[in-house]
Amino acid sequence: MQPFRCLNHQIERYKILNTYSKNRIGTDFKSPAIPGHTSVARIAEAWYIVAEAKKLRQTPLAVTLLDTPLAIFRDRYGKVGALLDRCPHRNVPLSLGAIKGDHLQCAYHGWEFDRTGACQFVPALMSESRSPGRRVAAFPSREQDGFIWVYATPDIEPTSEPFHFPLLKEKNYTSVRQEVQAAASIHAVAENALDVPHTAYLHGGLFRSAKTKRNEIEVVIRRGHDRVEAEYIGEPRPSGLAGRLLAPGGRKPLADGKVTHFDRFILPSIVQVEYRLGETSHICLTGALTPVSDFYTRLFSVISFRLPLPGWLVALLLRPIAMHIFQQDADMLKRQTATIAHFSGEQYMSTEIDVLGPQIYRLLKQTERGEKTPAAEPFTRTVRMLV
Amino acid sequence: MQPFRCLNHQIERYKILNTYSKNRIGTDFKSPAIPGHTSVARIAEAWYIVAEAKKLRQTPLAVTLLDTPLAIFRDRYGKVGALLDRCPHRNVPLSLGAIKGDHLQCAYHGWEFDRTGACQFVPALMSESRSPGRRVAAFPSREQDGFIWVYATPDIEPTSEPFHFPLLKEKNYTSVRQEVQAAASIHAVAENALDVPHTAYLHGGLFRSAKTKRNEIEVVIRRGHDRVEAEYIGEPRPSGLAGRLLAPGGRKPLADGKVTHFDRFILPSIVQVEYRLGETSHICLTGALTPVSDFYTRLFSVISFRLPLPGWLVALLLRPIAMHIFQQDADMLKRQTATIAHFSGEQYMSTEIDVLGPQIYRLLKQTERGEKTPAAEPFTRTVRMLV
Amino acid sequence: MQPFRCLNHQIERYKILNTYSKNRIGTDFKSPAIPGHTSVARIAEAWYIVAEAKKLRQTPLAVTLLDTPLAIFRDRYGKVGALLDRCPHRNVPLSLGAIKGDHLQCAYHGWEFDRTGACQFVPALMSESRSPGRRVAAFPSREQDGFIWVYATPDIEPTSEPFHFPLLKEKNYTSVRQEVQAAASIHAVAENALDVPHTAYLHGGLFRSAKTKRNEIEVVIRRGHDRVEAEYIGEPRPSGLAGRLLAPGGRKPLADGKVTHFDRFILPSIVQVEYRLGETSHICLTGALTPVSDFYTRLFSVISFRLPLPGWLVALLLRPIAMHIFQQDADMLKRQTATIAHFSGEQYMSTEIDVLGPQIYRLLKQTERGEKTPAAEPFTRTVRMLV
Repeated sequence: MQPFRCLNHQIERYKILNTYSKNRIGTDFKSPAIPGHTSVARIAEAWYIVAEAKKLRQTPLAVTLLDTPLAIFRDRYGKVGALLDRCPHRNVPLSLGAIKGDHLQCAYHGWEFDRTGACQFVPALMSESRSPGRRVAAFPSREQDGFIWVYATPDIEPTSEPFHFPLLKEKNYTSVRQEVQAAASIHAVAENALDVPHTAYLHGGLFRSAKTKRNEIEVVIRRGHDRVEAEYIGEPRPSGLAGRLLAPGGRKPLADGKVTHFDRFILPSIVQVEYRLGETSHICLTGALTPVSDFYTRLFSVISFRLPLPGWLVALLLRPIAMHIFQQDADMLKRQTATIAHFSGEQYMSTEIDVLGPQIYRLLKQTERGEKTPAAEPFTRTVRMLV
Repeated sequence: MQPFRCLNHQIERYKILNTYSKNRIGTDFKSPAIPGHTSVARIAEAWYIVAEAKKLRQTPLAVTLLDTPLAIFRDRYGKVGALLDRCPHRNVPLSLGAIKGDHLQCAYHGWEFDRTGACQFVPALMSESRSPGRRVAAFPSREQDGFIWVYATPDIEPTSEPFHFPLLKEKNYTSVRQEVQAAASIHAVAENALDVPHTAYLHGGLFRSAKTKRNEIEVVIRRGHDRVEAEYIGEPRPSGLAGRLLAPGGRKPLADGKVTHFDRFILPSIVQVEYRLGETSHICLTGALTPVSDFYTRLFSVISFRLPLPGWLVALLLRPIAMHIFQQDADMLKRQTATIAHFSGEQYMSTEIDVLGPQIYRLLKQTERGEKTPAAEPFTRTVRMLV
Repeated sequence: MQPFRCLNHQIERYKILNTYSKNRIGTDFKSPAIPGHTSVARIAEAWYIVAEAKKLRQTPLAVTLLDTPLAIFRDRYGKVGALLDRCPHRNVPLSLGAIKGDHLQCAYHGWEFDRTGACQFVPALMSESRSPGRRVAAFPSREQDGFIWVYATPDIEPTSEPFHFPLLKEKNYTSVRQEVQAAASIHAVAENALDVPHTAYLHGGLFRSAKTKRNEIEVVIRRGHDRVEAEYIGEPRPSGLAGRLLAPGGRKPLADGKVTHFDRFILPSIVQVEYRLGETSHICLTGALTPVSDFYTRLFSVISFRLPLPGWLVALLLRPIAMHIFQQDADMLKRQTATIAHFSGEQYMSTEIDVLGPQIYRLLKQTERGEKTPAAEPFTRTVRMLV
């Protein structure tokens, strides 16, 4: 076993961030820099969610994106801005400041900045306040689908727009939002969210059970240029508590047809789990992952559904179940990160039923290297597994 | 943005110090070593205050000076000593020990040391206890003006004596003492203490206000070989709560003359803010800064004053106001340090109204390099600003 | 004073371990890697105790041995196993898992491993579960004298067997077990356990006193190939609270003969303190030290005794006294480690009455280097000291 050498960087950085701003989101984590091989990929030319829109009011928020501290704010006209969270004058966080009209005002000496990062006012100064040297880096930002999105590269014009959540405005659909966090890489969180075999163990009884008779099914894996999906064919109706909620009526075949189940990963950081049970039931979880740091990830999810039960009732029941499941996942992912850190890197041993994780890894790494077209052609492949 | 590489050293060192001695002063801080450019200057050939004299009784105290752990003690004849806080025998802190006559006795095996660091007794040993190899480093120490001062270089004869606090024994003056601490460098604390423009923002309402009509005034900056001072000419009477306390009667011109206001920095680590309002009011804050570590500083201050109000009343009101102001400064300085640490160094953008900070930086750096005469000649310069 | 450079490794590793498993033994410590000279010796080809046998039931335990996380478990037939605490599939701790027959089942995806580390089952997988690539490292383990012993090198056949505790089954003897921990190296804990001079200071009043008249005695030091012992000749009956318990009747000479006192260190990590007072009293403390990490040590001790007082009464009184003494030692050892860490290494100054520490150091270092025969011949030496 190799001792690991410099686990300290990120942990210390985050400790400092903790000191830095009590209200910074994602401050209670300890996420190590790991020197050996890991599935971390840093994709900076991309949009990520940094907050629910309704949480950004007249007080700036401190958030971290790819290790970069940002001050996000909403000016008095409602427009959203995202600046590097460091005043160029004496390097204190701008997120401690206040909104003055369409400016963000630093709490220390009162310097004011607009949404482009330009300094517009230096109190007490008799000469010109505006000066290129007093500029702060500005990150493109959008308010869309009820979320604040920030482009992770500052001072450029993005060539893309944020991902659109599906079904949010669809008739007869109800949507539930939830933000959760995990001390793990984007890759680990995405693989976990889209992995079927662990559900019978880590979530035993809630989803699938390790104890009931198992069915052999077919999984079709399709990889495209910006995504990979797994379609589960022949899957029985989900058992367990979650299954009963989604499809009241038990494990017997549905009257009106088959179970359709897709799991999808879409670059740079979207996960999607979609179930259709006959004509009446459709449920789709879409999650946008945000890399706070290499080993700390936020997941902003929307669960949209149309089910035989009333939407308000499902929404009521769904949230605690989803949170319980996610907490089990977050606990396990944290221990996975800790083990990887202790051993200075990952030593994973995959099998053919790890259908999406290795594919997600390739997509992330190709994008991190700047490859617009994947090295390998899109493909379709079929494996069989027991569920 | 550069990730920073070795923020860990000092943080870890201080964590260890925390473990080390629960009663060590300055233990709840986390002060990073920062690899990039910072305004840290380490001046070891200088006197610093390590404790108020009245706090050193018959129990040794553990203090840290420039990262060096010291055991300070008062022997039974009242004399003060300062030894490196490590027993040469088995390397436990001597500050855990006890006073035996004019010796400091180690708590582990009972070895005894005198104020020069010489070992005078090894219990159970039948051969000679005194041996040069059993010596511990001794730091010059003084008791002066009600403080314990230690010279930061051991085992030499200092060529200077500690700074004398002015006005302490002056007739008609009252003095108030206060110790505070900040997770920031000596430079950052000194600049903050002597900076005028931030008071209208960080301390808005207490001192000056950002909202009242501003007056254009003249600032004369004078730099000498061991000091720099700013004189504010034409300044109105201080507004805000603190102003009203210092000069009852409001913002209107004083009957008996003008406002005189000096801010001074004196090497290696003295800050001074002096106000005269006409003939009747004189208030002078003198602070001695002690570098616990690169980014952790203690400030021992004496506020001496002669005011129209009774001294005891002012003293009563002054302390909570001063503590409130300092706490605001300490919070901001801590966040400044955290931001500097996160970004691996400072990127300051000064203007002409940062009248003292850049000058203090030059004095500190010249002294750290051992230059007895500053590279540049003493000068006088005038700037104008709005207060 | 040298600043130290990389104190971070181990501290961070342990912090991660804390995150890693709340129930991992030895998680609340912070034990630094120290770059300079220290008396740390890492001996991996040796047996160490990792738990009391009665604490290992049907739930796996997470333990750490020489920085290596282990999952120890008892299968449903009572047999003990010790595997590297990392599932080869997705690198989560196996100690989070459950016992399935004679397998340890991972909590994440349900993979099952036997006591040799072989993977026996991969749920959901249709192809063969058994595969050499899915193996986890297995450490030899034994259950002996009521303890779980693990050999610190995996995947080999040990050439030795664990140490046998003496007197455990001896007629007329009572035995008391106690586990304690200290944030210090094996060497520091062993030296402390076998050191006489500190008892009059650190444990003043309990054992020996610094105040009573001292007696000159002779100490015979005997070093063999795997051990060193000190015999104290002419020692008076132990004074203090502990002494009165062991030999009711005070400091006056025993009616039936002399005091016999041996302190022993036996490789790799056994400490032993043995007292005989005449014919009626015999007490022997045997401790097995376990290196969790370089500067964190567990001590599993058995105190066996035959005394004039009833065994149950002595046992009742002995435990709180022993724990009090050990807590004083553990506090001092922790501060010793912190001081060594702060100063980047040890700078010890021994005298001739440090009779065992330097000898233990040589034995440990020789063994770490793989020397089967010590460089120097076994010897006997006599020193005189005051007790």
